[in-house]
Amino acid sequence: MITLNVELGVRRYPIFIGTGLMHHRQILDPFIGGRDVLIVSNEIVAPLYMQPVAAMCSRSRVETLVLADGEVTKQMATLMQIYDKLVLHRFGRDCVLIALGGGVVGDIVGFAAATWQRGVDFIQVPTTLLAQVDSSVGGKTAINHPGGKNLIGAFHQPLCVLSDMDTLNTLPDREFRAGLAEAIKYGLIADAELFAWLEQEHAKITRRDTERLQHIVRRACEIKAQVVAADEREQGQRALLNLGHTFGHAIERCAGYGEWLHGEAVAAGTCMAASFSARIGWLDQASVQRIRDLFVRLALPVDPPRVNAADFLAAMSLDKKVQAGTIRLVLLRSIGDALLTADYPAHDLVDYLSEQFVH
Amino acid sequence: MITLNVELGVRRYPIFIGTGLMHHRQILDPFIGGRDVLIVSNEIVAPLYMQPVAAMCSRSRVETLVLADGEVTKQMATLMQIYDKLVLHRFGRDCVLIALGGGVVGDIVGFAAATWQRGVDFIQVPTTLLAQVDSSVGGKTAINHPGGKNLIGAFHQPLCVLSDMDTLNTLPDREFRAGLAEAIKYGLIADAELFAWLEQEHAKITRRDTERLQHIVRRACEIKAQVVAADEREQGQRALLNLGHTFGHAIERCAGYGEWLHGEAVAAGTCMAASFSARIGWLDQASVQRIRDLFVRLALPVDPPRVNAADFLAAMSLDKKVQAGTIRLVLLRSIGDALLTADYPAHDLVDYLSEQFVH
Repeated sequence: MITLNVELGVRRYPIFIGTGLMHHRQILDPFIGGRDVLIVSNEIVAPLYMQPVAAMCSRSRVETLVLADGEVTKQMATLMQIYDKLVLHRFGRDCVLIALGGGVVGDIVGFAAATWQRGVDFIQVPTTLLAQVDSSVGGKTAINHPGGKNLIGAFHQPLCVLSDMDTLNTLPDREFRAGLAEAIKYGLIADAELFAWLEQEHAKITRRDTERLQHIVRRACEIKAQVVAADEREQGQRALLNLGHTFGHAIERCAGYGEWLHGEAVAAGTCMAASFSARIGWLDQASVQRIRDLFVRLALPVDPPRVNAADFLAAMSLDKKVQAGTIRLVLLRSIGDALLTADYPAHDLVDYLSEQFVH
Repeated sequence: MITLNVELGVRRYPIFIGTGLMHHRQILDPFIGGRDVLIVSNEIVAPLYMQPVAAMCSRSRVETLVLADGEVTKQMATLMQIYDKLVLHRFGRDCVLIALGGGVVGDIVGFAAATWQRGVDFIQVPTTLLAQVDSSVGGKTAINHPGGKNLIGAFHQPLCVLSDMDTLNTLPDREFRAGLAEAIKYGLIADAELFAWLEQEHAKITRRDTERLQHIVRRACEIKAQVVAADEREQGQRALLNLGHTFGHAIERCAGYGEWLHGEAVAAGTCMAASFSARIGWLDQASVQRIRDLFVRLALPVDPPRVNAADFLAAMSLDKKVQAGTIRLVLLRSIGDALLTADYPAHDLVDYLSEQFVH
């Protein structure tokens, strides 16, 4: 088992990465003690892992809640289901919530924990590659608004993150690949070596070689932990983690939530960020091609769906990075070097989108 | 104009107290600049003060939202109305929300600000005595759940608080008196001198003498600012500000939200806390009588409504101060000296409630 730490002073917390962690009965004890626990999962993950996770909380009163699967679950009505459960069982300010599942479960349970009685403790047990490399670390919690992804949320750090590699064996293929998109992101923004390694190892990775997956999760968490420790509330460099996300969120929204997996949208969104970077002369065409090729090899989408360019721009303009009416984008100067900027000609973005959406 | 500061390091902020503040056009400039502003008020307050507050934001794009009046407004559906407005006008992470109204408006707008795009700035412009002496200061934001008051919320400090004494002239009598209940609370928990002064000046206070009201708001804010600076997230002494609130919230819930004003419930709840303190031998009977007398003089209720004792206890047990299943109460040792404790015989509380509710 590897232990990484997210260094956030009094909110410092560990990420445990390894195999067989869910059978490590004592691992959560220091975090939970005998406090009341609500484990929230979804209909796909619960039958597989609810029982072992509940067994880790043997000193506690344990309640469980099983949500529907999918991005559409990440909405206000589901949040109310969690609150209702907490009220029903009279859980107090000293309870602990456990998010057992992928990014959707982690985000919504994290937000419930951030707001129940003005904030209670929670633990992330991510069971998808996407959640393990990205969404379970860093304390971003949210639900969607019909007008945009993650528009309602809070920063709320977990007590710890438990990433058991074994859960990746049961992951549907499409979900697995979607997670790889976020792993590639770390290579692109901060680690050219990781990107090259992903190119080289892609076949073994696709076969879910445990050692390689563990390397990916570890390296992604190392980068993310460092970025989050330096900029918890996204005043600066943390925004780089949003590479491909402004385009990606617009894809998710325009296609209808749930049609594209988040990681798939990030894949196509990252290709758009790369080709737009090239269009304004920042990135060379060879790098754009390398990026597209890697996504293609991993069977991830590299082009957005056919939608109206104006609708797409409108969806992008709801992004949380918009400042004084300008869409700030994470763009690439090279593989391994990204920056957040509003310093591009606005008409270039409009032209670029018009070209993209004339298929 | 008096300026007090809530000393919270980087989240330090001023409370402005005085008359004619809403005609001080420049007063909000340093906080807003030219950023987008959404002013949220209610149907009672908006016709009176929306226009002058909007005029203070002359360099900004200003949008407004008028909510229904009353405690029932403090719910999820109203929160969604605020989010919808922000989405409709594409307000970004750099916008500012202004809460113009009493405690309900302040709590819900503060919570919207805490959660919109994971946290945006907001300003409190309290127009009721209750909001000026209590709820607008300290960063507690919340909405109600059908299962209990303020169960969903966050700590989120405002940029500043603007308490214009002039707004108290238009306050309905019942609302005005309800605010006095929270003022008395500060005397009881921390300032015996303030309590004695309230006894002595009650007639002039009831006639809304501006100088005396300003003294009350100032003294309450001084005490609250000190308590909040020492214990922002209610790990300890801040809980004393909840004197009368565990009983009071149960009154509000059992009577049906909106039947009792919050301050009225706090008045009767404080009398219950006092008489329970006496029952277990902590407070002398003469002090209990002095407390009841002051509330009576100010035409505030001193007894709870007729409800079922078991229902009342159940409502109390949803309080956020419950720890490991035990209801912690703020009790009195003398006028000016309160403490938070679970150290009372549980059966005494049950017996006490049984007696209270056999009228």
